[in-house]
Amino acid sequence: MVKRSKPLRGFINERDVGVELKMNKKLDDNDSLPTLDLQRSKGSMGALDDGCYNVVLENGVKLDGIEHEPETVAIKDAVKVLLQGLGEDVNREGIRKTPLRVAKALREGTRGYKQNVKDIVESALFPEVGVENGTGLAGGAGGLVLVRDIDLFSYCESCLLPFQVKCHVGYIPSGQRVVGLSKLSRVADVFAKRLQDPSKLADDICFGLHHGINPTGVAVVLKCSHIHSPNFQSAFLESNHKRLSSIIVGSGLGTFENPDSADWVDFFGLLRCRDITLDNIRSRNLFKDSWCPSRSQKLGPSVNPSMETAVALILRSLGQDPCKKELAGTPNRFVKWLLSFKDSNLEMKLNGFATIPLKTSGLINHKEHIIRSEVNLSLWSLCEHHLLPFYGLVHIGYISGEEINPIGKSLLQSIVHFHGFKLQVQERLTRQIAETVSPLLGEDIIVVVEANHTCMMSRGIEKLGSNTATIAVLGRFSNDHLARSQFLQTIPSYSL
Amino acid sequence: MVKRSKPLRGFINERDVGVELKMNKKLDDNDSLPTLDLQRSKGSMGALDDGCYNVVLENGVKLDGIEHEPETVAIKDAVKVLLQGLGEDVNREGIRKTPLRVAKALREGTRGYKQNVKDIVESALFPEVGVENGTGLAGGAGGLVLVRDIDLFSYCESCLLPFQVKCHVGYIPSGQRVVGLSKLSRVADVFAKRLQDPSKLADDICFGLHHGINPTGVAVVLKCSHIHSPNFQSAFLESNHKRLSSIIVGSGLGTFENPDSADWVDFFGLLRCRDITLDNIRSRNLFKDSWCPSRSQKLGPSVNPSMETAVALILRSLGQDPCKKELAGTPNRFVKWLLSFKDSNLEMKLNGFATIPLKTSGLINHKEHIIRSEVNLSLWSLCEHHLLPFYGLVHIGYISGEEINPIGKSLLQSIVHFHGFKLQVQERLTRQIAETVSPLLGEDIIVVVEANHTCMMSRGIEKLGSNTATIAVLGRFSNDHLARSQFLQTIPSYSL
Repeated sequence: MVKRSKPLRGFINERDVGVELKMNKKLDDNDSLPTLDLQRSKGSMGALDDGCYNVVLENGVKLDGIEHEPETVAIKDAVKVLLQGLGEDVNREGIRKTPLRVAKALREGTRGYKQNVKDIVESALFPEVGVENGTGLAGGAGGLVLVRDIDLFSYCESCLLPFQVKCHVGYIPSGQRVVGLSKLSRVADVFAKRLQDPSKLADDICFGLHHGINPTGVAVVLKCSHIHSPNFQSAFLESNHKRLSSIIVGSGLGTFENPDSADWVDFFGLLRCRDITLDNIRSRNLFKDSWCPSRSQKLGPSVNPSMETAVALILRSLGQDPCKKELAGTPNRFVKWLLSFKDSNLEMKLNGFATIPLKTSGLINHKEHIIRSEVNLSLWSLCEHHLLPFYGLVHIGYISGEEINPIGKSLLQSIVHFHGFKLQVQERLTRQIAETVSPLLGEDIIVVVEANHTCMMSRGIEKLGSNTATIAVLGRFSNDHLARSQFLQTIPSYSL
Repeated sequence: MVKRSKPLRGFINERDVGVELKMNKKLDDNDSLPTLDLQRSKGSMGALDDGCYNVVLENGVKLDGIEHEPETVAIKDAVKVLLQGLGEDVNREGIRKTPLRVAKALREGTRGYKQNVKDIVESALFPEVGVENGTGLAGGAGGLVLVRDIDLFSYCESCLLPFQVKCHVGYIPSGQRVVGLSKLSRVADVFAKRLQDPSKLADDICFGLHHGINPTGVAVVLKCSHIHSPNFQSAFLESNHKRLSSIIVGSGLGTFENPDSADWVDFFGLLRCRDITLDNIRSRNLFKDSWCPSRSQKLGPSVNPSMETAVALILRSLGQDPCKKELAGTPNRFVKWLLSFKDSNLEMKLNGFATIPLKTSGLINHKEHIIRSEVNLSLWSLCEHHLLPFYGLVHIGYISGEEINPIGKSLLQSIVHFHGFKLQVQERLTRQIAETVSPLLGEDIIVVVEANHTCMMSRGIEKLGSNTATIAVLGRFSNDHLARSQFLQTIPSYSL
């Protein structure tokens, strides 16, 4: 094991701009890295040990043929247990292949365990002269190289949900050589494709590059965004529920080990206009333990032991030890989160609501019937094809002489949550909302759902910025495109 | 061959908001699709014929082991000819592996020729009920489903440079079924990973989905952005040279064939806040032929027949017929563009410049020496590892009592272009600029280069939003981080 130093680490939680700064100290050679069991190799590997794996491909790891591998089959079976725990018929057409999809996504999303940083980097170290000794810092000898705004995603080790990462990586070349720029991104991705928490991810990338390039210094700053995970009750209580919890972390090695190093000044100087400064990273408080929203709740008693066992089995099939500290509560958290989408949890809640007349009675009958709308209702749901969350906004339009009364809006929100908190597809959700509100709001209904799908971000296609809009129309809205258009114009612009 | 209809097609060129709208007509069964030769299969395939290829992978095509395939070897050899034509030593360490990198990137970037749309889509058609007959449109029977903001890149068939695509795809479900949302993105990517032009890309995606899903209607709107390709002369003449040329195109089938269809109103209604409207698509002028900047120049006589032959060979190794109409001028355009980065073209131009004193003489000597800067100098260059452009801004700082005279700025721009218009790496470029300006501006020099690398966008990693900043310092800037910081703060924020 080469000598390593423990990276500088800082945290900022946007909720409180709280922060930590750990000073670095050199570790002894005997300070070992955490080891991870990887079932397949039947051995243990340090996250950065070299030579354990030679599966290094230029364009993402080769994962074809994994369908029949025992790990994939084991995860598939475990996901079936989860679906059954949710009260689902695992042979229902929409979810019949969900276990396979989930298994493949998880294995692909953790492919970084099988990738070898050093090989990636070493093939792309290029000789590059610096300036004459003592005259300056540039080229292959000094002078910061910073790749900004690398989009990644990773899986949260605390709850198994994917989180987004905006990654900034810098290093100071030494030894008259530079590394191919794309390798900074590739190495970052190797560590993102593991079960992670933000500061560990920053440290891993930092150490990986330090070890691979052997530069004067290397620094990593990440902004990580984790989806919130309300349940029906909390989502309903907090109508403006934050969709994402963000944290900024940093890690540095070599000349970046000292948080007062002038190299950090360069790093943040070149990182301008991204609301990230050295002062942020230098603040004090530590929100490490609450960055994942599910960690803010205490671990409860096992709600469903067979489901938790299934999640532990998934972790093991991913080569991880479910008993290790970081993962000890993960099955409990994941199952608790998953069960918040159990259909039957909510069946009762809407009972009685549907017959309440929504329109304020006694209003003027001669008033012209116009298009009314209730926009920006919060949505949380679970994609039944991938068991991953999707979230966004619902807009409802109707034609009436009367506006709904104030209680009406919260009822509509309740209907959205009622249909949201279960295994869904967006198209069905949109239709169901339309059909449910029709008895309350009349036969002329338009529903628009705008949502971000985590499955679009975290699987092979990785289309981070994409989002989906669906529309359902009843009655007059089916034929009257001017009415539709008029309603669509009332939807406020909003970045999902 | 199934009956197909010719898609609606519209163009908007942002330079002039010019547009075209072709009305659709049903084609006869005899109207054939353009066929493409794919060398490997020794057969011809329509872009959408089924069954020719079964290489359908969930996460991108399998391309490992391609290094030794004859097509890859042929492209490698051709790229060596190109490098030699540029006067390069193909055994120089920095570019020794460039032929292989280019070959792999091109083959990966055109992998869509081997992917089969129908298989991708059919595996993800899910039963989904609609609403009761006649009461509305929703779920698996009507009601637009729109996936917005899918980021793609493609290769321009006119010049072989990659272009960026922001893709919006919508369809109206029919037959009580919906398609998995990610498949819309995957199918779009199948056609993006070919040699394309924007309107053909929109048509291909549209037809592929129509054929695969058989929906009531399908529509595609793309905003495509193509890098400009100035040479040393034109870049210097137009100091504010536009970096990207953009065009918006649309294509529709089924109910979207009629440009006056109400479904388009829904489409654009849901696409709000993206500066794209039905009126745009409806405008008249046509910029199809000039969207690729290299097409605005007439095809010249062959400047280097052996290089052009090499490019034709590359096209053939990608399975394309270099003689077909769309590709006939491509070798000429590509070689002309490539030769604009030939080092020796420019060696003469800087001669004599370096001895011109830049500082206005006779200024007050007692004036305090302060940090001066010249920011936002344009940069165009060519990544020597991938033969792909990178472009951005250069900022130069120096310490002096005097500002440079007005001629000085254009000289600095000239120096940037001098070092830019050749095979480069950003780290070297930054150092070279610093070293070249030092005799003119004094021993205290700082140079910052901010650049977008096409190779980061168009290769396996596809980090579309990332960009790279490098820094070189001489003299006092090497030790004085406050001076560095002070200079960095003078750089205006700018989105590359």
